[in-house]
Amino acid sequence: MIKLNKVLSPDELEQTLQGIGAERYHNLHPFHKLLHGGKLSLGQVQAWALNRYVYQQGIPIKDYAILSNCPDKELRNLWRQRIFDHDGIDQDEGGIERWLKLCEALGLERAYVQSMEGVLPATKHAVDTYINFCRHAPLLIGFASCLTELFAPKIHKERIAGMLENYDFVDETMVAYFRERLTQAPRDVDFALRYVKEHARTIDQQQAVIDALYMKTGVLWAQLDALYLAYVSPGMIPPGCFTPVQTDVAAAQ
Amino acid sequence: MIKLNKVLSPDELEQTLQGIGAERYHNLHPFHKLLHGGKLSLGQVQAWALNRYVYQQGIPIKDYAILSNCPDKELRNLWRQRIFDHDGIDQDEGGIERWLKLCEALGLERAYVQSMEGVLPATKHAVDTYINFCRHAPLLIGFASCLTELFAPKIHKERIAGMLENYDFVDETMVAYFRERLTQAPRDVDFALRYVKEHARTIDQQQAVIDALYMKTGVLWAQLDALYLAYVSPGMIPPGCFTPVQTDVAAAQ
Repeated sequence: MIKLNKVLSPDELEQTLQGIGAERYHNLHPFHKLLHGGKLSLGQVQAWALNRYVYQQGIPIKDYAILSNCPDKELRNLWRQRIFDHDGIDQDEGGIERWLKLCEALGLERAYVQSMEGVLPATKHAVDTYINFCRHAPLLIGFASCLTELFAPKIHKERIAGMLENYDFVDETMVAYFRERLTQAPRDVDFALRYVKEHARTIDQQQAVIDALYMKTGVLWAQLDALYLAYVSPGMIPPGCFTPVQTDVAAAQ
Repeated sequence: MIKLNKVLSPDELEQTLQGIGAERYHNLHPFHKLLHGGKLSLGQVQAWALNRYVYQQGIPIKDYAILSNCPDKELRNLWRQRIFDHDGIDQDEGGIERWLKLCEALGLERAYVQSMEGVLPATKHAVDTYINFCRHAPLLIGFASCLTELFAPKIHKERIAGMLENYDFVDETMVAYFRERLTQAPRDVDFALRYVKEHARTIDQQQAVIDALYMKTGVLWAQLDALYLAYVSPGMIPPGCFTPVQTDVAAAQ
């Protein structure tokens, strides 16, 4: 892990953050390669959507936590768009609702998904860690923890194309969430990155920014680790967690 | 997962909690079977000790969090013995120090262990979840989250016998932590169980007690899941995490 021994220029800081993404962002995880490559069964895709729902429903909670540390009204009013994106506003149903529709289209019951009962413990722990981090971090560092959005558009494009192409059971409605994110994430991250580059000026602040991104890549990576262990190999599903039904339609390959 | 529809008697509540342990305590996890059965290499045992250190160092933090919710001096003075057990007091070096000695005896560097740098993200998330739970839970529920101690003496006995017998590189010094826990845990849990049985009187309180034990068994289980995935099968070590050296002494089998 990177330990700074001198202050970086804003552009050096950005390069450092990009480097962490190149090394640790979860697009590198074997589970995503399987998911995007059409190598998973319906049951495995269900497990992914079910667990990922916990992350999705946590996003606005995380953003409310961040803004609870923000004394600047203008900043709050800029950042709160993220909350609207996920919780919905006016005509927009929001990302959480889009994710629930994705789950339903995959054959999961809405109430079961929302109960979060069948979810892997590691998924809950990862989301807990992220929310609690944002609750207690200084504003700059809370913002910095969102910078995985720098790397998101690429993975969303891969996912939309890969899932539509490779699975019979995936249609346009099911990728609606990711289509929205293609425009939302770059807009969000432009602001977050600019803010972080401008405000992380001391070595301690820059180190905390870097550590926040390490934390966040770990949050994303650990969720896929847990899915892999339980549902790919060796297939060790923890007690009480979602178990795909045996009559799963196999993935079109 | 158990959802109560009536209030339980104190003894029924205890039986219910015992049932959760019988189904979900991590003595049932394949990783522990390998560990106790002498089936792991030195590198795998190192990975276990290194990651488990994060949990060990978090125990007194968790107990301080619990006691920060306790307005009763007598209760605090009873419970704080747990802090002494791990942080040490007077002539007792405490459990954290004993764990560090275990790590050193396994060939890990103390400073590396204490830095928690090579630790799996899921380990940190699990410990985070546990500490944050105790910080925010009512006192009764914080106490209840410790009730996995009900099931601990059995696993410690298995571990002491299994590790001494099965690994050339394990000696009496290295199991000192577990020997201490054989007397500490039953003393602690007697009090916690009595308190919970006496104070969890409403259906909501009893459900919260049950949910706390589910949460805690998940915290323990997820740590072994992550170890299994990274260091047993399929051996997917997340970026930046501890990697056993190739020249490991193989386990005596």
